[in-house]
Amino acid sequence: MSNIAASIITIGDELLIGQTIDTNSAWIAQHLNELGIDVLRRVAVGDDRTAIIKALDEEIAVASIVIITGGLGPTADDITKPLLCEYFGGKLVVDEQVLTHLKDIFTKRNRPFLERNMKQAEVPDNCTVLFNKMGTAPGMWFDENDKVIIALPGVPFEMVSIMEVEVLPRFKKRFFSDALLHRSVITAGEGESFIAEKIKDIEEALPAHIKLAYLPGAGMVKLRLTGRAADAAKLAGELDSWQKQFANRLENIVIALEDIPLEEILGRWFVANNATLGMAESCTGGYISHHITQVMGSSAYFKGCIVCYSNDIKEKILGVKKDTIEQYGAVSEQTVTELAQNTLSVLEVDYSFAITGLMSIGGESDRIDVGTVWMAVADKYTVKTKKFWFPYDRPRNKEMAVSMGMLMLWKFINGKL
Amino acid sequence: MSNIAASIITIGDELLIGQTIDTNSAWIAQHLNELGIDVLRRVAVGDDRTAIIKALDEEIAVASIVIITGGLGPTADDITKPLLCEYFGGKLVVDEQVLTHLKDIFTKRNRPFLERNMKQAEVPDNCTVLFNKMGTAPGMWFDENDKVIIALPGVPFEMVSIMEVEVLPRFKKRFFSDALLHRSVITAGEGESFIAEKIKDIEEALPAHIKLAYLPGAGMVKLRLTGRAADAAKLAGELDSWQKQFANRLENIVIALEDIPLEEILGRWFVANNATLGMAESCTGGYISHHITQVMGSSAYFKGCIVCYSNDIKEKILGVKKDTIEQYGAVSEQTVTELAQNTLSVLEVDYSFAITGLMSIGGESDRIDVGTVWMAVADKYTVKTKKFWFPYDRPRNKEMAVSMGMLMLWKFINGKL
Repeated sequence: MSNIAASIITIGDELLIGQTIDTNSAWIAQHLNELGIDVLRRVAVGDDRTAIIKALDEEIAVASIVIITGGLGPTADDITKPLLCEYFGGKLVVDEQVLTHLKDIFTKRNRPFLERNMKQAEVPDNCTVLFNKMGTAPGMWFDENDKVIIALPGVPFEMVSIMEVEVLPRFKKRFFSDALLHRSVITAGEGESFIAEKIKDIEEALPAHIKLAYLPGAGMVKLRLTGRAADAAKLAGELDSWQKQFANRLENIVIALEDIPLEEILGRWFVANNATLGMAESCTGGYISHHITQVMGSSAYFKGCIVCYSNDIKEKILGVKKDTIEQYGAVSEQTVTELAQNTLSVLEVDYSFAITGLMSIGGESDRIDVGTVWMAVADKYTVKTKKFWFPYDRPRNKEMAVSMGMLMLWKFINGKL
Repeated sequence: MSNIAASIITIGDELLIGQTIDTNSAWIAQHLNELGIDVLRRVAVGDDRTAIIKALDEEIAVASIVIITGGLGPTADDITKPLLCEYFGGKLVVDEQVLTHLKDIFTKRNRPFLERNMKQAEVPDNCTVLFNKMGTAPGMWFDENDKVIIALPGVPFEMVSIMEVEVLPRFKKRFFSDALLHRSVITAGEGESFIAEKIKDIEEALPAHIKLAYLPGAGMVKLRLTGRAADAAKLAGELDSWQKQFANRLENIVIALEDIPLEEILGRWFVANNATLGMAESCTGGYISHHITQVMGSSAYFKGCIVCYSNDIKEKILGVKKDTIEQYGAVSEQTVTELAQNTLSVLEVDYSFAITGLMSIGGESDRIDVGTVWMAVADKYTVKTKKFWFPYDRPRNKEMAVSMGMLMLWKFINGKL
């Protein structure tokens, strides 16, 4: 399976002064990669004619596909569109579909469509227009000596929409005649090297048309199988069988056979088991609840959370005994146990998760180490607690606590804690 | 004020498969920019010898400073260290300070220091070692024909620590004899072009050694003045005076004269006014509280939040009348008003913020538009409400709601709502 090479060019002064974090490149790289297209390089340059031309020259020389994002807005500093038109020897013409779409948007927003807005409907006559249903700037597809150069707006959700609807399906058709399929095995609790050692013999037995990738994250490692073959049905069967082999070998640490985030895995369990969930968050300040509610439909099982940042609220709303906090401290096994148990009755839920910890200096830092976190999960029969220590700064410690907290909840409901 | 040119090279296969979002480049660009160093290009390449050498050749040719991050770990695929050593014609030698530091870390983590860990203490003999107090891989500083090439680990907080302690102070000394100072004017509620028009005459009157930059964000625009001059005290006075002029002109929309996040601005007000804050979050699921508690010391004023995702909790914990929800719906002015008012008494706080909305299809989507959000702020005298509509997908609508919510709270406490 020999791969196609791509380069990504992101354009915009805001990238070079660090005002914007480039999330587009990661999204594009990930989706090209799933298709079997390798990203060789990613380059960011400013809204500068010479810099853009240099980047185009260099990347077109080494890659079969060049994807450009940014610089397509209507303001004066967005020079990508006329520049690309000229670079490929075309001229700008008004596209009727884009014009209708633009006028439609302006009408809906109750804004007058001015003469200068006409510019936004212009496209190079030597490109295929990639319709942008989410915004005003259309994408462009240029064919040049067997190479494909694509320009997309820099607004992330516009870029994603055009890639999904217009670009990725065309790439599939154009560059690959074979079917491409994926399978995932999501694991938690062990590191990459442990897993690699454990599945070594199976990995070595994989046929040439099936590849295995390790994608580690916080507390988790995702394994992704990618297969490519002419016969899609046969390939699907093969992949299923390999996935099963890996999953069986890693039995104890497998948490899903699908590449979805942990909050989604949790959500499916709660829906399937018709159970409800409530939380009490102290040190994470609502950040775990935020993750749980990122899942569409989470209101079916997630009833809510008491962000009990002050001891007052731990006592008054969640009924933690004053004595417990005085004797053991707010960051203690005793307090987190009462938080989890009382959350069951206060929020009237089947399962509860509670967390209390010290994320930075202050509070109880004379008594306990900064980074100490207690978590608890409870149902009506039992409560389990666990102590963690996170060594980073406040934001990073919070991130770690979210991952570890959701993982602890997953282990509890699956009887693995 | 003529600027120094820099390039950033990020190394790592994980960047090219989209597994990691590159936050390092933005941080580096931002901090170089504040110093008066312009980033020309940012390039990401894989852990591949040829690709790294090509990037080095290209970037050293165009920039005075090249900053490389990533590829310095102890695993086999991290090839940057030996490659750089060879590229600049040095050889690897054990650095005693790094070795002591490493052994110390291994002892603390209770792990044996093995022979192969010695490799981690090796550095090129032709570089200045940049001590990494936060991790195991040291940074490296190479001088080559008047150019500076820096290599740093890819772990964000290690990179930040070395940049702050070792790199930025040296850049300041080496490249600039003049003092460099900044002043900020943070505004909210108006767009970049409105502001530009309003302050046009002042901006045009700025002397050559003082520059103005516009940095737009969600609902906010930051103005940053950068001055460079031999006499630091005189420059400080000048900048203060220009800052005052801009701030006076933009009076109604200025929210701070310092570049700090909105949650920090809010935090300072609550500390200064010795007031407490509590929240009721429905559709944002705890995400606003998370932001509020990102501020160190927020426990002094933030007591907590009821994430009332279900109507049950709105009624039971926050005392919203069943009738109100039945008659007007959970996403309504009436419900959000009761939420805000009752939060005051339930959480015993001086100020409350409440939010309820519909982030994606489901719930009350037959009755109201997806993206409809009601917010309210209350103190014991009054409650103010506002209706918003966010047109994006669930995650982006949530982000918008957080920014707009904190802004609404800021306006309320400053008597501008």
